[in-house]
Amino acid sequence: MNLHALLRELHEENTTKIVLLVADGLGGLPFEPGGKTELESARTPNLDGLARDGVCGMSLPVLPGITPGSGPGHLGLFGYDPLEYRIGRGILEALGINFEVGPRDVAVRGNFCTVDDAGKITDRRAGRPTTERCVAMCKLLQGIKLPGLELFVEPVREHRFVLVLRGDGLGDAVNDSDPQGVGLAPLTARGADPASQKTADAVNRFVAEAARVLKGQAPTNMVTLRGFARHPKIATLQEITGMRAAAIAVYPMYKGLARLVGMHIADAGTSLGDQAETLKRLWGQFDFFFMHYKYTDSTGEDGNFAAKVEMIERLDTEVPKIRALNPDVLIVTGDHSTPSKLKSHSWHPVPTLLWAKTCRPDSVTEFGESYCLRGGLGQFQAMYLMSLALAHAGRLGKYGA
Amino acid sequence: MNLHALLRELHEENTTKIVLLVADGLGGLPFEPGGKTELESARTPNLDGLARDGVCGMSLPVLPGITPGSGPGHLGLFGYDPLEYRIGRGILEALGINFEVGPRDVAVRGNFCTVDDAGKITDRRAGRPTTERCVAMCKLLQGIKLPGLELFVEPVREHRFVLVLRGDGLGDAVNDSDPQGVGLAPLTARGADPASQKTADAVNRFVAEAARVLKGQAPTNMVTLRGFARHPKIATLQEITGMRAAAIAVYPMYKGLARLVGMHIADAGTSLGDQAETLKRLWGQFDFFFMHYKYTDSTGEDGNFAAKVEMIERLDTEVPKIRALNPDVLIVTGDHSTPSKLKSHSWHPVPTLLWAKTCRPDSVTEFGESYCLRGGLGQFQAMYLMSLALAHAGRLGKYGA
Repeated sequence: MNLHALLRELHEENTTKIVLLVADGLGGLPFEPGGKTELESARTPNLDGLARDGVCGMSLPVLPGITPGSGPGHLGLFGYDPLEYRIGRGILEALGINFEVGPRDVAVRGNFCTVDDAGKITDRRAGRPTTERCVAMCKLLQGIKLPGLELFVEPVREHRFVLVLRGDGLGDAVNDSDPQGVGLAPLTARGADPASQKTADAVNRFVAEAARVLKGQAPTNMVTLRGFARHPKIATLQEITGMRAAAIAVYPMYKGLARLVGMHIADAGTSLGDQAETLKRLWGQFDFFFMHYKYTDSTGEDGNFAAKVEMIERLDTEVPKIRALNPDVLIVTGDHSTPSKLKSHSWHPVPTLLWAKTCRPDSVTEFGESYCLRGGLGQFQAMYLMSLALAHAGRLGKYGA
Repeated sequence: MNLHALLRELHEENTTKIVLLVADGLGGLPFEPGGKTELESARTPNLDGLARDGVCGMSLPVLPGITPGSGPGHLGLFGYDPLEYRIGRGILEALGINFEVGPRDVAVRGNFCTVDDAGKITDRRAGRPTTERCVAMCKLLQGIKLPGLELFVEPVREHRFVLVLRGDGLGDAVNDSDPQGVGLAPLTARGADPASQKTADAVNRFVAEAARVLKGQAPTNMVTLRGFARHPKIATLQEITGMRAAAIAVYPMYKGLARLVGMHIADAGTSLGDQAETLKRLWGQFDFFFMHYKYTDSTGEDGNFAAKVEMIERLDTEVPKIRALNPDVLIVTGDHSTPSKLKSHSWHPVPTLLWAKTCRPDSVTEFGESYCLRGGLGQFQAMYLMSLALAHAGRLGKYGA
C-alpha cells in the first residue's frame, strides 16, 4: 500500500483550510565558507514567527543527491511520488498556457531559432524575440496543415511556443530536434516505436513546412522541438485527498502543474499582493491553496545572492496577509534548492515549516537551513508533506483498528 | 524507477574525482556509560577539519537494526541496494583470491577441520593451520576428479579455501555442510531444487573423496563447506554512473567486492602508506577511488577499544595525503559499526562525512557519532551516498523538466 492508496482510504471531510506557500528554489548555500545562506541572511520576522510556533524540517524533493526540475519538485509537494509520475516538458508547457491537452494529443515544446543559409543554427533562442513577434510567427505556423492530423501552434513567450499534434495512435518516444548547440542543423525526429514514428514523420513534415513559411523571417527563421509528451494518467488531488484545491500562481508552468493534478487555476494577477488578494477572494470556495512565488528561484538562477535575500524578505512581508485569514495549516517550503552560488537547481534539502495548532513545536525559532536541520520534521521526502498537512488539518482518519 | 535507473539516466561526464575512504567497522560504542566512542576518543585533527568544512550524517547500512556482513555493507556504499543484491559467501571468497568466477560456476567457502575416528568434528578450524599447510592440503584435494564437472580448489589462508564447481545446470540452493558445532559430523548436502540437487550430489561425492585423501593428515583431515553461490548478475559501477572506478584495498575480500561491481583492482601494497601512494599513482586514470582500511574493524572484533582508537588515529594521519591530491569529493565512512564493546559487527548507524566545495556545511566540527547525529546529511541509507557523491561532484543532471 502506497501513500496515495492510504490517503484515498483515510481522508475525511472537514472545514479546515490548508495553505501551501511554495517559494521556488528556496534552499540555498552560503556564498563564502562560514557564511549564511540566503534564507538565513534575510530578515524574516514573520516566517521566524511561524517557525517558532510551528514545526520545521528539511524536505528531500526526490531522493538524496537528486536535483529535480520544476515538475518533479512540485508533484512531490502535491503528494505525488515524483519517481512514479513523470511529466514531459511538452505537457508542462501546454498546461501552462491553458491548452487543454487531450488523450489523443502529443505536446511538444518549440523554440524559434536562427539558422544560416546552410541551415546551421546560429542562435538557439533567435535573439530572444519579443512575445509579440512570437505571436506573429506562431500565426504563420498555424497555416501549416498535415493530412489526418489536427495541429495547434500556440505562443508561450519570447522564443518559446507549444506544438500539439492531435490524432489517433500518436506515440511520444521521439527524440528532441534541438541539437543543444550552435553550428549544427536541427536533428531529424525519429520514433522509438511505430506509434512514435508516426509522430516523428508528422513532425518532420511540420518542420520542413516551418522552414519554408519562416524563410526570410530571420532571426526567427527556424524552429527546434523537444520534450515530446502525451498527457499522463494521473488522479486528481481531490480524488486522492477529498479536498477542493486552488492554485494561486503567476507563471504558466506552475499553473500547468497544478492543473495536471486537477486544481482550479485562479486568475491570480501578477504580484504577491495580487496573489494574497486572490487567496482572500477564494477562501470560502476551496480547502487547499497552492501559492507559488517564483522570484526566489529566478534570483538564485541568476547567481544574485543579494537579490534572492531581498525576494525572501519581500515574501516575508506578505505572510501576515495569509495568517490574517486564519488558516488551519500553513506550510512554507520550496520545490527544490536554487543556491545563488551554483546558479542552478540543486539537490540540497529544502527548509520547510509547518504551522498548525495541532503541531508539536520544536526548538526552532528562526526559518533557515541550519535551524530546520534540528526541527521536529527531521529530513523527509517531500511527498509526505501532503499527509502531514492533512493530518494537522484533521483530515485524516486512523489507519487500522 | 529505482536509484540505479535514475543514476543511469542522469549521470553526466565530468573531470571531477571522488574518493570513498571506508574505515571498516568505523562506528562504535562507549565502553563505559557516559563515555565516548572509539572515534570520539581518538585524536583526529584531519578528519575533524573535513567534518568542519563538509557535511556529516549517520549512515544506515541496510535498515534500522540490521547488522550487515562485509558484502551488503560495501554494496550499499557502492550505491547498490543491499536488499536487492545478495552476494553469497562463496562468491566473495572466490573473488577475494582473484578467481574469475564464470556463469557456469558455483563457488563455495571451504574450511579444513579435524574429525575423530567416528567422523565427529573436534575442531572446526583444524587448529588454524599455517597457510603453507593450507596450500599443501589444497594440492591433495586438487587431485579429486568428478565426471562431467571441472573442479577448482584454491587456498585462501589458514583453514580456509575455495571450491568452485564448473558445469552446466548447477544450482546454488544447497545447505551448508558445516554443522556449526563440535561433536557433530559434517552435514550431507541437499539441493532445494533439481539444479541444486545436481550440485549437492557432486559436492557429497567431493567430500567423500576429500575424507579419503585427507585421512592421516590430522588435524586437517576433513572439510566443511558453506556459502554455495553462483555469480550474481550485477551491473558495473561504470555502467550505472559512468565513472571509471579503482579499488585500493589490501585484503582479498574487499578487492573481491570491488571486482564484483567492475572496479579496477589496484596493486595497493600492504599498508595505508602504500595505499596513499597507489592513489597518487592512479589519480589520472580513474574518476572514483574506493580505499579500504581494515584495522578499525579487526580491533573492534578483538574487543580492543584502545587499539581501535589507535587505528583511527593512524588513519587520520594519512588524510592529508589524500587531500593533497585535491579531490572534488572526499567521503569518510564505514561499511558498518564494529563496537569493541560488542566484539562484532553491529547495526548502529555509521558516522559519515562528505567534504566537497558544493556541500552545504553544517554545525559539526568534530568527526564522531554524537556530532554526526546533528549533521546536515541526517540519517540516511548508505546506498544514497553514491547519488550524493555524484551530485556534489557535478556528475548528475536534473531529474525532469
